Amino acid sequence: MKFQCPTAILSENISLAQKAVSIKSPFPVLTGILFTADETTNTITLASTDLQMSIETSFPAEVIESGSAVLSSKFLGDIIKKLPETNLMLEYLPAEGKCVIRYGSSELAVATYRPDEFPKNEEIIDGESFYISGEEFSTYIKQVLFATGTDESRPVFTGVLFEIVGQELRLVASDTHRLAFRKAFIKREDPGKNINVIIPSRTLHEAVRIFGMNEEILIRISEGQVEFRGNGVKLTSRLIEGQFPNYQQVIPTTFKSNLLINKKYFLDSLERAVLLPRDKDKTPVAKFYLEKERMIMTSQSESGSIREEIPISLDGEEFTVAFNTRYLIDVLRVLENEEIYLSLTGPLNPGVVKPVGDENYLCLVLPVRPS
Amino acid sequence: MKFQCPTAILSENISLAQKAVSIKSPFPVLTGILFTADETTNTITLASTDLQMSIETSFPAEVIESGSAVLSSKFLGDIIKKLPETNLMLEYLPAEGKCVIRYGSSELAVATYRPDEFPKNEEIIDGESFYISGEEFSTYIKQVLFATGTDESRPVFTGVLFEIVGQELRLVASDTHRLAFRKAFIKREDPGKNINVIIPSRTLHEAVRIFGMNEEILIRISEGQVEFRGNGVKLTSRLIEGQFPNYQQVIPTTFKSNLLINKKYFLDSLERAVLLPRDKDKTPVAKFYLEKERMIMTSQSESGSIREEIPISLDGEEFTVAFNTRYLIDVLRVLENEEIYLSLTGPLNPGVVKPVGDENYLCLVLPVRPS
Repeated sequence: MKFQCPTAILSENISLAQKAVSIKSPFPVLTGILFTADETTNTITLASTDLQMSIETSFPAEVIESGSAVLSSKFLGDIIKKLPETNLMLEYLPAEGKCVIRYGSSELAVATYRPDEFPKNEEIIDGESFYISGEEFSTYIKQVLFATGTDESRPVFTGVLFEIVGQELRLVASDTHRLAFRKAFIKREDPGKNINVIIPSRTLHEAVRIFGMNEEILIRISEGQVEFRGNGVKLTSRLIEGQFPNYQQVIPTTFKSNLLINKKYFLDSLERAVLLPRDKDKTPVAKFYLEKERMIMTSQSESGSIREEIPISLDGEEFTVAFNTRYLIDVLRVLENEEIYLSLTGPLNPGVVKPVGDENYLCLVLPVRPS
Repeated sequence: MKFQCPTAILSENISLAQKAVSIKSPFPVLTGILFTADETTNTITLASTDLQMSIETSFPAEVIESGSAVLSSKFLGDIIKKLPETNLMLEYLPAEGKCVIRYGSSELAVATYRPDEFPKNEEIIDGESFYISGEEFSTYIKQVLFATGTDESRPVFTGVLFEIVGQELRLVASDTHRLAFRKAFIKREDPGKNINVIIPSRTLHEAVRIFGMNEEILIRISEGQVEFRGNGVKLTSRLIEGQFPNYQQVIPTTFKSNLLINKKYFLDSLERAVLLPRDKDKTPVAKFYLEKERMIMTSQSESGSIREEIPISLDGEEFTVAFNTRYLIDVLRVLENEEIYLSLTGPLNPGVVKPVGDENYLCLVLPVRPS
C-alpha cells in the first residue's frame, strides 16, 4: 500500500475512525485502524471496530499502490494532528512491520498489525431503511438520550427505543426514574413493515457527532444491527437485545394541575437549587409549593438553603410536590421553546414536561417522596 | 453585617478570595471566607487563608450595618455565579448561624462560621519592597516556574529563588534536572539591602493569575513572608525555609558547540518526538545528531519512530546528544523570540537554551545518557 494525500484530510478521517477503535482489547489488532488503498478508484478507506460499533470512512487520494495495512491508532491519531500541512506520502512496509509517513525531508514510522487479522465488517443487505436530516436527527436524539440509564444489568434501559409505525418514528428512553418520548415523521420508501429496536446510547452519541451536521442521513435497520450512512461515512452497531417495556401505559393522560412556566426562568432557578444536594444521599431535591400565579421552590443542605418565587399560570389544584432538580434541568436544557407545561397528577405521581406548541415531545419525571 | 452590592462585583471578589481557601482543613472556619463590612468607608473586605497563603480583597458597597461574618465558601462560590445580575442584599443573622442573600422576591441562606475563630492576618510592616509591572512579572515568572520541582522532601526546589542585589532581580528555579534563570531590573526605593528568599511555586502561580494584568505590583519581602499588592488585592504567603544551592557554579560558561535554531521549527519537531516516550520508563527522549547545517532528531518507542531534519547553523564540534524532549519543549514554550541558541558542552554535559537577543535569560538542561 502506498499513497499520497494532504495532512488535513488524513487527520480528519483518522479522528473519525478513532471513535470506534478499541482502547483496550484482548485482540491488539482492534486497537488499530485498517487502511485500504484502491488504485483503480484512487480511494482510501479507513475501518475500525470494537466489535460492538464499527466505522468506515472513505476519501480520495493519489494511490500509487493498492493494498491494505492496520496502523496502530493511538500514536497515529496523536502525531497526525502535529504534522505540518503538506502532502504526506504513506507506504506500508510489511517486511518491517511498519508504515512509513514522509513529510518534507523528515519521516516517521507507525507500528502495524497484520491486515488479515482484522475482522471483516458484515454488510447489511436486507433491512428497513429511512432518511432523516442531520439537524432533526441531532435534535431528536439529544431530546431523549439524557434519559437513558447506565446500569448494564438492565441493558434495555441503556439504549433508545426506535419504534417505527408507517411513516412515524417514536424514540423512547428511560432509566426507570424518568422517560423521554419524541415522535417524528420520516421519509420511508416502503413503510410496510413496523420496526421495534433498541439502539445503544453510545452509538447514538457518536452518530450525532458524526452525522449531526449532514444534510441527510440514511438509517438502515436489520436483524440485530443498525447502520448510519452519510457523506462517505458508515457507522454500524449491534442493537440491544430484549424487549423495551410498554411505555405508553406509564404516561399519564389526565392531570390534577397544569402549570405554564417560562423555561429560562425555571431553568435558572433549578440550576441554583441543584447546588444544594440533600445531605443524606447527595440527591438534589427541591420542593415546589403550587399557588395560582406563583410556585415557591425550596431546597436545603448543610451548606445553606434557597427559597425562590417562580411566576406560573396554574390551572388546577394547589399542592406540594418534590422533584430531583437534576431531572428537570436535563429536560429543560434540550428544549428550545420559550414556555413549557408542567403537568402534575399529585405529590406521589409522575409529572410531565411538555414544550408549549409541540405535541410530539414529552418527558415524564417521577417525584421524590418528601422527607 | 448588612450590605448591598451588584452580583458581578461580589462574584468577582469571591472568586479571587477562593484561591486561598482551604479545601480541606482540620479547622472548618478556614473553608470559609471572612467578610468585613465597614459603614464609615462603605467598603467590604473579603479574606481567606490556608495558613500558607492568604488573600485580602476590598470593594465598595452600600453598607447598612458594619460587622463581620465567615461564609462557607464552596456553596457561596458556586451559587454566586448563577445569581441574576441585580443588586444583592446580604445580611448576617448570627443567632441563626447563617447569612441571607436576597435577590428580587427570592433569597438564599449560606452557612457561616464564627468570625472570632478566623485567624488574624499579620500585617507586614518591615521588609524590603519594590515595584514591577504586571506584564513583566507575569512573563518572567512563567519563564522560570516550569522548572520548579514537586518533591516535597526537597522543599527549596519547589519554589523560585528571588535574589535581589541593588536594582537587579534574579529569579532561579530548578528541579535538579534543569535550571531556569531570569535577570531583570526593578524599581526599588532603597536598594541598600540584598535579598535572598524562596517563594513557593503555588504562590507565584496565583500571583501571576491575580496580578498579571495589573499595571504595577508592589512586592514586599520580610522575615519569612512575602506580600503582593495591586488594585485593592493583597496576597500574602510564607516563604520556603532553607538555602538555595549556588546556581552560578552549575551554569557552564564555555561550550563545544553553539547551534542557532528557528524556535517554531524546533518546537514543532519536539512536539512530535514527545509522542514517542522511551518504552522502559516512559521518558520522552530524542537523540540529536549535529551537522554543520542541520541536526537529525530521532526518537522511538514500540508505537513507532520518527526521524526529522532540523535546519541549524552550527558553530563548533559535530557530535550526538540526547535530551528529554519535554524539558526542551517547556523552555521553548515560554520564549517569544524567533530564534534561540542551544549551546552544548558534549554528550554528557548540560546544554543551555538562550533566546537570541536577550542576554538576561537562560535555561540549563541536563542531557540523557544515550542507551
